[in-house]
Amino acid sequence: MLIATPQSMHFPAALPLQSGASIRGYDLSFETYGTLDAGHSNAVLVCHALNASHHVAGVYLGQDKSEGWWDNMIGPGKPVDTDLFFVIGVNNLGSCFGSTGPMHINPDTGRVYGADFPVVTVEDWVDAQARLLDALGIETLAAVLGGSLGGMQALGWTLQYPGRVRHAVVVASAPNLTAENIAFNEVARRAIVTDPDFHGGHFYQYGVTPKRGLRIARMIGHITYLSDDVMNEKFGRQLRDTLVGAAGSGVYKYSTQEVEFQIESYLRYQGDKFAEYFDANTYLLITRALDYFDPARAFGGDLSLALARATAKFLLVSFTTDWRFSPQRSREIVKALLDNRRALSYAEIDAPHGHDAFLLEDARYLGVMRSYFESIAKELTSVAVGVKA
Amino acid sequence: MLIATPQSMHFPAALPLQSGASIRGYDLSFETYGTLDAGHSNAVLVCHALNASHHVAGVYLGQDKSEGWWDNMIGPGKPVDTDLFFVIGVNNLGSCFGSTGPMHINPDTGRVYGADFPVVTVEDWVDAQARLLDALGIETLAAVLGGSLGGMQALGWTLQYPGRVRHAVVVASAPNLTAENIAFNEVARRAIVTDPDFHGGHFYQYGVTPKRGLRIARMIGHITYLSDDVMNEKFGRQLRDTLVGAAGSGVYKYSTQEVEFQIESYLRYQGDKFAEYFDANTYLLITRALDYFDPARAFGGDLSLALARATAKFLLVSFTTDWRFSPQRSREIVKALLDNRRALSYAEIDAPHGHDAFLLEDARYLGVMRSYFESIAKELTSVAVGVKA
Repeated sequence: MLIATPQSMHFPAALPLQSGASIRGYDLSFETYGTLDAGHSNAVLVCHALNASHHVAGVYLGQDKSEGWWDNMIGPGKPVDTDLFFVIGVNNLGSCFGSTGPMHINPDTGRVYGADFPVVTVEDWVDAQARLLDALGIETLAAVLGGSLGGMQALGWTLQYPGRVRHAVVVASAPNLTAENIAFNEVARRAIVTDPDFHGGHFYQYGVTPKRGLRIARMIGHITYLSDDVMNEKFGRQLRDTLVGAAGSGVYKYSTQEVEFQIESYLRYQGDKFAEYFDANTYLLITRALDYFDPARAFGGDLSLALARATAKFLLVSFTTDWRFSPQRSREIVKALLDNRRALSYAEIDAPHGHDAFLLEDARYLGVMRSYFESIAKELTSVAVGVKA
Repeated sequence: MLIATPQSMHFPAALPLQSGASIRGYDLSFETYGTLDAGHSNAVLVCHALNASHHVAGVYLGQDKSEGWWDNMIGPGKPVDTDLFFVIGVNNLGSCFGSTGPMHINPDTGRVYGADFPVVTVEDWVDAQARLLDALGIETLAAVLGGSLGGMQALGWTLQYPGRVRHAVVVASAPNLTAENIAFNEVARRAIVTDPDFHGGHFYQYGVTPKRGLRIARMIGHITYLSDDVMNEKFGRQLRDTLVGAAGSGVYKYSTQEVEFQIESYLRYQGDKFAEYFDANTYLLITRALDYFDPARAFGGDLSLALARATAKFLLVSFTTDWRFSPQRSREIVKALLDNRRALSYAEIDAPHGHDAFLLEDARYLGVMRSYFESIAKELTSVAVGVKA
C-alpha cells in the first residue's frame, strides 16, 4: 500500500502575479510518490481541480482506505505507475488545504488575508509549481497531468515552460470557459458573497462562515459535474422516504420545504458536507482562475497561434456526456495542436458519468492512460539506455 | 391593436386539492381576447409557465407596447388569431399576479397565507381552470395551449377533462421532470429558504423579502432557459467594461467580486429585476408543481397507459437546443400517444435559443402554430356549416 506523507515548503521570495500584485512568504503543501531516478527524468506533476489538494494518492499512516482524489490513477502498478514514475501532487496557492491561502496571515499587514488574498490565475499556479520543481531539483517533467482545471494547468505548463515538459496529459478540460460555465461560477459566487455571514470576505474575525452560500455553490457544482443520464439512473424521480421500487411507488408529502425526492437529499448532503470544510474565499479564487484562463486571449482568440509555443507531446481525453467541459472543447485543443503539427493522441471516452468521469473507474479511460504512461516509461528507458551506451 | 382588460372572478366554493387539503374563497385573474362564438365552440385556453400570468397578449389602455408574454403568438392575424378564436389567459392559484396566492389573507385564519398556502399541483390548476370555464359558459375548448409548465397543464387537461378538449398544443414541455430538472429547482428553493429574510415563509410580517435567494433562483433559471450556443453568441467571454471588439480585447480587473464578464452583468440584472417583483412563496409553489407533475406515476411509470384517457388531437413542439425540456421528452409523449393511436402532429424546431425559444420569434415555429390553428379554425367552420345545413 502506498504511504503518503504531506510535506510543505516555504518560499521566501515574492511571486509576481499576473494581476500585477505579488505574494510573498508563501508555503506550498505537496506530496510525492515513487522515487526520482538518478537522471531526474521520471517526474510527473499532477495538478488539481477545484475541490482537491496535494493528497492525490495513497494512505496516511493508520488509514485503511485512501482519500487521495486520484488514487485509482496513481500508485504502484496503476496507470500512472509509481514504481516507474516520481509523482508530485501540489496544493495550489489560495487553496484551503495547506498551501498559503485566504485564511492565513498576510505578512504585509499581520492580519488574515480573507478577501484581500490576491487573485491567482492558472498561470500563477504554474509559476509557483515551477519554483517547487526547482527546489526539488527537477528541470524537466516526464509529464504534467491534470483533469478539468488541472488540465488547464497542464496546458499552461506547455506554454509557460515548453522546454520543461515532455508530455502533457489534459483530461476533461477546455481552452477556456464558455459563457455558460462562467454563468454557473457567477451564481455560485453570488450565493457566497450575498450570504450575510460572508462579511465582505472577512468572516473569520466574526467567528462564522458563509455556509448557506457554500451549500448553494456546491449544489450547483454537483449538478454540472454529473450527466443528466447518470442523475436519472442514480436518482431518477425516486422519493426519499420510499424503498427502491417501481416508478410511481410512494406517496408525495406535498411540501415545498421538506425533502421529497432522493436527488434533493443527495444535493443537500453534498452541500452540507462541503460547507463544513471548504473556504469561501478559496471558492471565489478558484472559480475566478477558471474564468480567467484563456491562452488564446493574447492572440486575438486564435488558439492555434497561442499553442504554437507548446512543444510537448499531448494526450487529450474527453468524455461524451461531459457537458461542463464537452468533447468539443477538447477537440478545439486537438485542432490547434494539429495546426501546429504537434504530436498528440486524443481519446473521446463514451462514458455515462459526465464531467465526474475523469475521477471515476472506467476501464477504457484507465486503459488509455495506462498505455500512454507505458509509452512515456519506454521513452525514459530508451533514453537511460542511450545514456549508458 | 388588441386592448387587454384584466378581469377577476371569485369562487366561493372550496376547491379540493390533490394533497388532500382544499382552498376556499379564492379569486382567479384572467383576460380574454376575441369573441366567443354563438356555439361557444371557439375558446382557446392558454396556460402559463413559471414567471408569467393571465396577461398573455395585447396592451392595457395607455400602453404603447404589449407586455403580454405571448403577444407574438396571440392577437388579430397572429398564429392564434383572435379574429377567429376566443382566447382566455388565466393566472394560476398560488401565483403573485392577481389570483389568490401566498400574499393574500387565509379566510380560515384571517392572516396572510405565507408559507401556509397549500401546495397546488398542475392537476389542481386544471381543476380551477375548468371551474372558470364553467362560469364563462364554455363546455368544450377548441384548444388548450401552453409552453413548458403550461404544456404540462395542457397535457393535464386532456387527462382530467378529455371530453372538454378538442386539441391540445404542448410546446417545449415534458411528461415529468428529470432528476436534473428537480435538482435545479431544489437549488433555487434552498437559496430562497435559507435566505435569513425568508423567515420560514412569513417574511411579509417582517417587512422584508428574501431578495438574495430570489436573485440566485432567477440566475439559475436563466442559465437553464438559454442554450450554451446562444449564451456564447450573445455574451461569449466578452468583458463588461469593454467596447464590442475582437476576442481578447479589454483588460481583466482581477477581482473575485466585481463584475468582469458581460454574462455576469446580464445575470445579476435579471436576478435583481426578478427579486423586486416575484413572490418567494410563489416560486416555491410553482417549482414544486413542476416537480410533482407525473401522469405516468399512477400507472407504474407507463406513460402510454397514462395517456390512454386522452382523446384530444395533439400538436407537440420542441426545440433542438432546449436542454431543460429536450426534444427527447416531447418524443416520449409522441410515442405514448402513438401507442394509443391518437391523432398528432409533432414539430421539432431547429432553433438556437434553448428553452426560451418557445417565447421567441421563430418563423418556422410560428408558422407551425399558425398552420395548426388554421386547421382548427377550419374544423370549427365545417362544424358550424354542418349545424346550419
